[in-house]
Amino acid sequence: MSRLQLNGDIPKEKLIIDHSDLGIEASMTVMMAFQSPELEIVGITTVFGNSYTQAATRNALLLCEMAGYPNVPVAEGGTESLKVYEPNNAFHPPLKGKEIQKTAPEFLVEIVSQNPSCISILALGPLTNLALAIKRDSSFASKVRKIVIPGGSFFAPGNVNPAAETNIYRDPEAADIVFTCGAEIIVVGLNITSQIKLLDSEHQWLRSSKASNAQFYRDWHAKSDGGILLLQELVGFTALIRPDLFTLKKSVVRVETQGICAGHTLIDTKFQKWVSNNPWTDYSPISVVSTINAVGVLEFIKERLMKQ
Amino acid sequence: MSRLQLNGDIPKEKLIIDHSDLGIEASMTVMMAFQSPELEIVGITTVFGNSYTQAATRNALLLCEMAGYPNVPVAEGGTESLKVYEPNNAFHPPLKGKEIQKTAPEFLVEIVSQNPSCISILALGPLTNLALAIKRDSSFASKVRKIVIPGGSFFAPGNVNPAAETNIYRDPEAADIVFTCGAEIIVVGLNITSQIKLLDSEHQWLRSSKASNAQFYRDWHAKSDGGILLLQELVGFTALIRPDLFTLKKSVVRVETQGICAGHTLIDTKFQKWVSNNPWTDYSPISVVSTINAVGVLEFIKERLMKQ
Repeated sequence: MSRLQLNGDIPKEKLIIDHSDLGIEASMTVMMAFQSPELEIVGITTVFGNSYTQAATRNALLLCEMAGYPNVPVAEGGTESLKVYEPNNAFHPPLKGKEIQKTAPEFLVEIVSQNPSCISILALGPLTNLALAIKRDSSFASKVRKIVIPGGSFFAPGNVNPAAETNIYRDPEAADIVFTCGAEIIVVGLNITSQIKLLDSEHQWLRSSKASNAQFYRDWHAKSDGGILLLQELVGFTALIRPDLFTLKKSVVRVETQGICAGHTLIDTKFQKWVSNNPWTDYSPISVVSTINAVGVLEFIKERLMKQ
Repeated sequence: MSRLQLNGDIPKEKLIIDHSDLGIEASMTVMMAFQSPELEIVGITTVFGNSYTQAATRNALLLCEMAGYPNVPVAEGGTESLKVYEPNNAFHPPLKGKEIQKTAPEFLVEIVSQNPSCISILALGPLTNLALAIKRDSSFASKVRKIVIPGGSFFAPGNVNPAAETNIYRDPEAADIVFTCGAEIIVVGLNITSQIKLLDSEHQWLRSSKASNAQFYRDWHAKSDGGILLLQELVGFTALIRPDLFTLKKSVVRVETQGICAGHTLIDTKFQKWVSNNPWTDYSPISVVSTINAVGVLEFIKERLMKQ
């Protein structure tokens, strides 16, 4: 598997991917990131999600090896939500693999602290590791370069229930800490990511491609049930390196942690003045994607998938 | 003040207005309802809101007198939310007025029970009285003809804070009881009602009109600070008698009662299947207004305001 190299004069964006999942889309996103000339992957951290954290770690190690970067550090992270939300978590003995002997939050704090304003993070799971890093180091938020989060749903239904998107739902407390930490954050809600999908009929071209990504995709796809492929993680990845394909609106984002709306993301666009202070007052706004160039994003994703 | 009479063969819709407010718009709506040939106002119930309940009662009695219907029953209702939300409520001795010696929920239960499928309710304040009626009589929901509620905000910001619209915010528990009670309900959120507004420049015609409604409006308006007039209550009233000017979508509506999103209205449109049960499962859908014929509604309101 070859990797394109940019001219040495152009510094690459250093990226950590926080990864929770054995799903096709998240794994495709990691593979695509490894093949992206604009980026240098400086670490993968893992967190609970559809599967237990140790499986995400094993998967991350496998992906690094497949991509030809077996030495990229993989740090294992949270196995349950900040407030011990009951995840689909069974106890498993720690892997005797090659993951580094630091927890994901420790690793995040250390690398960000050593490389201020250099490290971006693409967060593809519950935001537990990031919240723990913020709690561990009060300067983390100001030292991280950028955090991109495909998650939440803004003025639109969720996917786990009418109120919430899965990754935010799995750790609402962590998500609220991250969204209000003051870091440079781009969040791409389901209302945006759900506009991009590949129908089965549309990705026949991928199956016949000889590109390594396409092959990887086919291998994964063989294990899935076919049908519609939602591209939430890939759209988030696109927002990281092609922000020109989106418009952003600065808004304060808070997450409900209680009641029937637990996990609901609700924004204050600051277009209105409120009569009195409210839970959105006094927090720094972050960048919420408000529109997407759907054709451009799909073209970008296809182009990357087809890369040799 | 004259009142148009319809041909006696056409039965009028019997309406109760649940009224909380000394505001211009709510009072205009009551006046307009009195002058509407399609309706017979069979009672006014009062509830806390911007002012204390007794003031709303006094105001309701005054409105009935001004409209030439001094014998319409006025029943005083809740002075605080179901869960004792702290209202702007000071203690005032009961009025020695003409309000009937029943509480609003007692009155509602009695009149609806005696006239099954006949009585519609336009709810212009917190939904406390309706919730108490539903708790008092388990057949209330099936016996009431229709409840129209200009309130909540669907996939859009609130007006008291980013999460909530004022009337729902003031008694979220009551609102959740009403929305899930199984009655025939039409709810018109801020996302719809905010599309209709009269700018100061646009209602000069009203000021120069000799119509009694216009005169009433001017008197009220003199006490206000001018500027933009939002027509939330009038749009709700329009939805009651001109549903053809709206499109409705059947959805389950729930209200958050806890946390930072308390008072938030969140719907399940039932377009999606959820993996597992959630707090929207198993409730009856109600009619949520999804689009408005803004020109038609504004014309209707202007025409009613100008009525002699």
